[in-house]
Parts: sequence; structure tokens; C-alpha cells
Amino acid sequence: MTEDDLIFAGRLADAAGAEIRRFFRQSFDIDAKGDESPVTAADRAAELAMREIIDRERAADGIIGEEFGTAREGARRQWVLDPIDGTVSFAAGRPIFGTLIALLEDGWPVLGIIDQPIARERWVGRTGRPTIFNGQPVESRRCRELKDAVLATTSPNHFSNDDGHKFMALAGQTAHRRMVYGGDCYNYGLLASGHLDLVAESGLQLYDFAALVPIVEGAGGMMTDWAGEPLHAESGGDVLALGDPARLEDVLAVLGDEWHPGHEH
Amino acid sequence: MTEDDLIFAGRLADAAGAEIRRFFRQSFDIDAKGDESPVTAADRAAELAMREIIDRERAADGIIGEEFGTAREGARRQWVLDPIDGTVSFAAGRPIFGTLIALLEDGWPVLGIIDQPIARERWVGRTGRPTIFNGQPVESRRCRELKDAVLATTSPNHFSNDDGHKFMALAGQTAHRRMVYGGDCYNYGLLASGHLDLVAESGLQLYDFAALVPIVEGAGGMMTDWAGEPLHAESGGDVLALGDPARLEDVLAVLGDEWHPGHEH
Repeated sequence: MTEDDLIFAGRLADAAGAEIRRFFRQSFDIDAKGDESPVTAADRAAELAMREIIDRERAADGIIGEEFGTAREGARRQWVLDPIDGTVSFAAGRPIFGTLIALLEDGWPVLGIIDQPIARERWVGRTGRPTIFNGQPVESRRCRELKDAVLATTSPNHFSNDDGHKFMALAGQTAHRRMVYGGDCYNYGLLASGHLDLVAESGLQLYDFAALVPIVEGAGGMMTDWAGEPLHAESGGDVLALGDPARLEDVLAVLGDEWHPGHEH
Repeated sequence: MTEDDLIFAGRLADAAGAEIRRFFRQSFDIDAKGDESPVTAADRAAELAMREIIDRERAADGIIGEEFGTAREGARRQWVLDPIDGTVSFAAGRPIFGTLIALLEDGWPVLGIIDQPIARERWVGRTGRPTIFNGQPVESRRCRELKDAVLATTSPNHFSNDDGHKFMALAGQTAHRRMVYGGDCYNYGLLASGHLDLVAESGLQLYDFAALVPIVEGAGGMMTDWAGEPLHAESGGDVLALGDPARLEDVLAVLGDEWHPGHEH
């Protein structure tokens, strides 16, 4: 991964954003424009814009896209694209969804972008370098005790039963009165910028989380699955982000103990 | 209520916004600046800025403020102020909180503003006039069937047990996969602009809902309590907003039937 890749990824985000802005808060007659809702139209147009640039300028790299699937499977370098992470938020007119772009090398995320094209906010992360928000480095914040942690998650309805119970156990140990719902990828950006302490979600896809890893870790935070293992292309969809890596054991103790008392960890 | 009151209310929102922008996403050392978190400091500074203008220029009008309470109790005209509705969202760095300003006449809300000072978005509603969003009239959208309604609420944790059960019954009848959490007053603005169909919340205070009524109704929507009664200074905190008033009976049937089968309505 080179400086060139970073500039290239920024151009992908620019192209996606230009498409997305055309559709945000537009309610056109569905019949008049074919079958697509504005959010579906925006999602597809943004991914196509990015894929076209990759096909043209990085013809050897693979692509894993939320809308149009995989190209050049098995390539060592793969671009992972989620044109609109937070489609429900987009459809409701909230400017806290994002375009996610990751570069994987041998299955590991080494570069990530969260782009909010309405507010024009962009987090850029790169393995081993400080995370940049709109041109300035950001740092996640320390959190001395789990009870002080501000926790975020997109929706309580996104958990399976068992994961939901674990999540609620975790919520009960944190500053639950300051807990925020909604937000999708935007929560991870805010965590990297030091405004939140924890995000816990399950059922995510690779394109939902790959871009977040370099951003959170480049800001001094940590991302793992719910067993504390690092995230890569083969990970399941249980995702944990911590602003302060020192709280990892506390969090895993709650997620593990409550529902698997016999489980060793 | 006059055209002058409308301009005056806009100046209150300007003054609050200038204070709030100083504190958004700032994390200062609490010890160094006294006891206040950034959100508390912003909340208090914004309300004081508005009260000062009212005391100076509308000395006969009453004030009901979230932070500093009631002044000139019993005045026929009362300004109802919530400097930051959505403090949890503000503290987490999300630009979807709002400043709420309402004017009550004889206890009825006749003017309302939702101001988002970071994105610089403002909804202005006034009894009998179209609601204005950033200078342009907006309309809430029609919703033919409850099953198509997009529902929003700030947090599932804000309901009492009984209200929570009713809410979940309502959620189950709507397009629950598109349901959004979080958002506070911003949800009501988005409903007025035609991006959402329903908001249901309970436990609200007068300063949380008074400003929303003229905004939602001026856009063609409807606001009531959970029994279908209009909202005024003496209402409880059960609040319902509908983009399409034609769905009121459907919603009340769900909120009423599920848990009070013997109740007549």
C-alpha cells in the first residue's frame, strides 16, 4: 500500500459522494424512474462510479462490493466497497450514513475511509499511521472504567437473541444513560475522534467493517470480534470497537461471562 | 402572534446557535473549567443568551426554560426554550440534536423552531401557515397503510414498561426494517419534510414537544398525545407525530388495543 493508494481511495470517495448527493432527500415517483427507491438508486450509482475507476486504473486489484459483488476473486489486493452504510438513515434524511472504502492486502484491511458526503466529513485510516479527519489527525479517548464508557449501536433489532442478551449485559455495565442508538459507520468515526468509547454490533458483513479497522486503530483505539480476535476477510460479523484498548478485557468478560459461564477465556 | 414574533424567534435561535457551536465536539478538561461538561456548558450558555434577549425585548412575556426554569409565571404569552434537545447526541458528536423554541399563547403552541446549528438547518412553523425549512416550504408525506410507515423514536430505553410494550406493538405494525432510532427533535423535522411517517415517544416535557406542534401541523401532519388529544401546556409527555393525519385511527387502535383490551375508544 502506497501514498498513491491513499490518494486513489480519496478519489473513489469523491466519486461516490457526487452520486449520493444527487439522491439525498429526493423523493421521486418510483414508477416514473423504474423500480428503484432513491436510496437504492444512490447505492448503485455510487458503487458503479467507484468500480469504474478501479477497473480503469487498478485493473489487477479485486473488488468486493455490497451491491455488485466480487470481481477478480483471489487477487492479493482487494477494494471493499459499501457505497451507503446506513441506508435506513439515508432514506430517513439523516446526514449520518457513510460511504465505506477499504483496501485489503492478503485479506487484512490496511486502508479505510468513512466518507459522509452531505456534511463533507471524511475519516481516513492507514495501518501504522495516525487517522486523519478532514485533514487533521484525531485520537480516540481514554476510558478508565467500563461504567464511564459511552456505548453506541445502530439498532437493538439487529442482534440475534443470544447476541442481544450479551449486548444488554454490556450496556448495563456502561454509562447507559448516555448510550446512543442509530449511526452505523458514523459511530466508529466519532469513536476515532474521541466522542464515544465503545461500539458493539453483530451480523455485520465484511464491507460493513473492513474500512473501520484502520481508522479506529490509527486513532489509538482497537477493533476485534466479540472473542477479542483481530478482524480480517474471514471474520464473522461480531464487531467491537474500543476507544481505549485497555478496556478490552472488561468488555470481553461481560460479553463472555453472562451467557457462556462455562466458556474459558 | 405577529410577523415580528417570527423574526424575533429566529434571532433567539441565532443567539443559541452561536453559543452551541463553541462547544460542539470540544473536549476540555473538566477540572480546568469548573464543573461543567461541554454539553452542560453549551446548554446553559445557549439558554442564557435567549433569556437575555427575551428579558430585554419582550419583558411582559413569560419564559419556561429547560435549564433555568420559569419566569413571569401566568403570562398569557410564554416562550418555551430547550437549548439542546438531544444532549446525548450532542455529547457523542452527532449533528442531529436541536435547539427548540416555542411561543405559547394561552397555553397553546402557535410558533415553533427546530434549529440545527452545526448543519445550519432550521424548521419554522406557525399556526395556519406552511412550515418553512431553510427558507422553503415543506410538506409531510402521505402514507396509505400503516405497514408502509417509517417509524422513528429516540431510544427504546426511554419508555416505561407499559409504554414500551405499546410502542413495540406499534413498531410491529409498521415498516420495522426501516425504523430509525436516535434523533430527538430532528426526527420531527424530518417528518415535516416528508422523510419519515411516524414518531412516537413518551416521557417528554413541555419544552421537548411544544415547538414541534406548529412545525408538524404546518407541514400537513398531525401531533397528538397517545389518546389522540391535541398537545398543549398541560399535556402529559406521550407524544405522537404523523405525517399523514389519515393514519391516526390506525395508530391509536394499536396503542390502545394491545394492552387495554377493555378500554373504550
